Amino acid sequence: MKIPEILLVESHHKPGSLAKILQVIGDCGLVVEHLNAIRRDQDKTVWEITLEMDEDVHYGLYEKLEALPNARLLGKSDRVFNRHRGGKIRMHSRLPIATLQELRDIYTPGVARVCLAIRDNPWLAREYTYLNESVAIVTNGTAILGLGDIGPVAGMPVMEGKAALFDKFVGLSGIPILLEERDPDRLVEHIVAMAPSFGAIQLEDIAAPACFEVEEKLKARLTKPVLHDDQHGTAVVTLAALMSAAKRVGTDLTKSVVGQIGLGSAGIGIARLLQAYGVEQVVGADLNEAALARLESMGGRRAELPDLMAECDVVIACTGVKGLIKPDWVREGQIVFALSNPDAEIEPNVALAQGAAYAADGKGINNALGFPGLFRGALDAHASAFNDAMLFAAARTLSELAPEDELVPESLDPKVHEAVARAVAEAAEAGD
Amino acid sequence: MKIPEILLVESHHKPGSLAKILQVIGDCGLVVEHLNAIRRDQDKTVWEITLEMDEDVHYGLYEKLEALPNARLLGKSDRVFNRHRGGKIRMHSRLPIATLQELRDIYTPGVARVCLAIRDNPWLAREYTYLNESVAIVTNGTAILGLGDIGPVAGMPVMEGKAALFDKFVGLSGIPILLEERDPDRLVEHIVAMAPSFGAIQLEDIAAPACFEVEEKLKARLTKPVLHDDQHGTAVVTLAALMSAAKRVGTDLTKSVVGQIGLGSAGIGIARLLQAYGVEQVVGADLNEAALARLESMGGRRAELPDLMAECDVVIACTGVKGLIKPDWVREGQIVFALSNPDAEIEPNVALAQGAAYAADGKGINNALGFPGLFRGALDAHASAFNDAMLFAAARTLSELAPEDELVPESLDPKVHEAVARAVAEAAEAGD
Repeated sequence: MKIPEILLVESHHKPGSLAKILQVIGDCGLVVEHLNAIRRDQDKTVWEITLEMDEDVHYGLYEKLEALPNARLLGKSDRVFNRHRGGKIRMHSRLPIATLQELRDIYTPGVARVCLAIRDNPWLAREYTYLNESVAIVTNGTAILGLGDIGPVAGMPVMEGKAALFDKFVGLSGIPILLEERDPDRLVEHIVAMAPSFGAIQLEDIAAPACFEVEEKLKARLTKPVLHDDQHGTAVVTLAALMSAAKRVGTDLTKSVVGQIGLGSAGIGIARLLQAYGVEQVVGADLNEAALARLESMGGRRAELPDLMAECDVVIACTGVKGLIKPDWVREGQIVFALSNPDAEIEPNVALAQGAAYAADGKGINNALGFPGLFRGALDAHASAFNDAMLFAAARTLSELAPEDELVPESLDPKVHEAVARAVAEAAEAGD
Repeated sequence: MKIPEILLVESHHKPGSLAKILQVIGDCGLVVEHLNAIRRDQDKTVWEITLEMDEDVHYGLYEKLEALPNARLLGKSDRVFNRHRGGKIRMHSRLPIATLQELRDIYTPGVARVCLAIRDNPWLAREYTYLNESVAIVTNGTAILGLGDIGPVAGMPVMEGKAALFDKFVGLSGIPILLEERDPDRLVEHIVAMAPSFGAIQLEDIAAPACFEVEEKLKARLTKPVLHDDQHGTAVVTLAALMSAAKRVGTDLTKSVVGQIGLGSAGIGIARLLQAYGVEQVVGADLNEAALARLESMGGRRAELPDLMAECDVVIACTGVKGLIKPDWVREGQIVFALSNPDAEIEPNVALAQGAAYAADGKGINNALGFPGLFRGALDAHASAFNDAMLFAAARTLSELAPEDELVPESLDPKVHEAVARAVAEAAEAGD
């Protein structure tokens, strides 16, 4: 995996000394991403040099830099870890609390009147608390990213990342909840008990098959939006990309034969949403018999991997297995989405070289495009649950906003998330 | 209860028109707290006038204002509710997420490395997540302020208020957790399951006697700081005020006879901390037999209210019953703390007029002085629990920082909370 590495290098003010430093870096096969003079003294300058390096492989760079006559390696720093120091999120007061009057208004005794008003009219909590602005991001750490069962605390950086995106993309307060619990029924009991604390609940990185049971039971017991992001968030963005690809190829997605490789939470979520959208033929491959049986119970059918590749117009892989799809399995005109992060089942450029009409990986089809607007829309509409109309509305909006040469839009564009939220809210209200 | 009310009054530019408006307000017995010109047209001005009024009593003010020839009441607005609109807290990203590189560093794929580092060295979570900066503020809504059992959601404004103070006073992230659960054992199970999400746990407004059992069981099962604020936070600030008063009166607090009126969570918490501090004689009064038995099991003794008042050097009341203490019960030289909010068992000036040496109410002895620094100190020291040495250190610091004419310092002063945190952290580290 490529990681960003920041070097601090001091160079003396001799002609060519910076050039020599950069030459050494180039000789190691590394590309300079960013260069910044962070201190300039009379006779030397300290440069901050950002490189993308393979993890744990340093190509002898540090030794070569040290050997230069007019340079000195002062240190290195890891940008990813630096950005995580102290955590990525923080709860803030929206009010300054600079005067005693403010303290008395927002704390005792003023707060008592607001409490009583909510006791008498519970819906006032939407207006006078942050409830309708908050989403619990709940995990038990059993399927963190593609890393597997690493426990809830090791999953915190992912949950904080989601919370940071909720803030930046749609202004919601995301609250990480790490549960030390594996039993689906007890997970449900804990989440139901704490549900009054939040406007909506995002389930995150809970392993299959527990995730299916937990989500179903929560939906049955709660009257607020619940969404397992790995299933439905990923499915929405995948459907959006398929809508874009199908439109450009000029085919009817519902008539395509879709092959789903890997039937974990993401794979099953995608298969389910595509069926709901009208796709008639979904074929699945997995090593797990229970996962195959689940697909069959949903009306899909099973196939061996090479047969699936040969038969399907559209292939979607969510297996976590790098390079699983052999290049010569790719069919002319096929749509191939290999979604595992950080390493795809087949690199998009390899699939395209084999004749694929469209190919994408998990970096392009990023679920960060889906969940922020989905939750903002559901909360804006005071929806009691997510339904398929809301998911389709989000997918349609993402597809419509995709630039001509992309299948989905840019995830950093706030207008995209606003548009998704609006479409989801409208769909929720139309369904009421 | 006095509430702030904001009137918007338009006055024509005639000599004396504003004076007439203010005269009408004065005639109603109301004091102008603040006056602000918020719009000035050619011939009239709109004034924002802030008054403190008794709730639901308007003294005919609005009609009298309407009857003035050159004034018009445009509307009124409630500052307390205005300050609560949309909630008082919000979760923010600490990073801008403006570039794709930032997104890749803090979300996928960068985040994976931080997750794996924490899996391998769990203590790294303190450094690279917000865990050591966060406190769950947990209630089940059974004893919200003096309002009683109003349910968890109606308690949210109090929990948000605590979170806002955590942010402003000590830079911690307070996370409101509202639990729909009354059974103490199940409460414990829920809190233990979610405990990995937070650095520490503040129990809040949980009714006695469940609060005692819940806190004890949590302390036994968790290796992170747990504090029931109503018991121990209030007790710390009360002990601080008593230290100040005893010093000035020139008595030894441990030799004083202390009377505790009301043996709910706050009363028991105060009695317990005073005993731990060395107070030998604690006398209690309550209507509830189980509460009296609890005090006796702790080594205190029971008394009828008038006898307690007659016997004790120090009297502390936490009953929620306005005016419970008859003025002629107050003894010359007594220290009388009537802590119920918003209405005290006896007004401090009444007690002082009866000869009390020191008198205070819950506005002066505010638990906002205690909990922020207690948690900041415990987290800074990576303490696995709160112990009495930490509570004493906080009380001693508050007493030392009290101005000459006050028993405790000003709660809005950030230096106070910093000093408490430092003292608590030192006490925690000394105990390791």
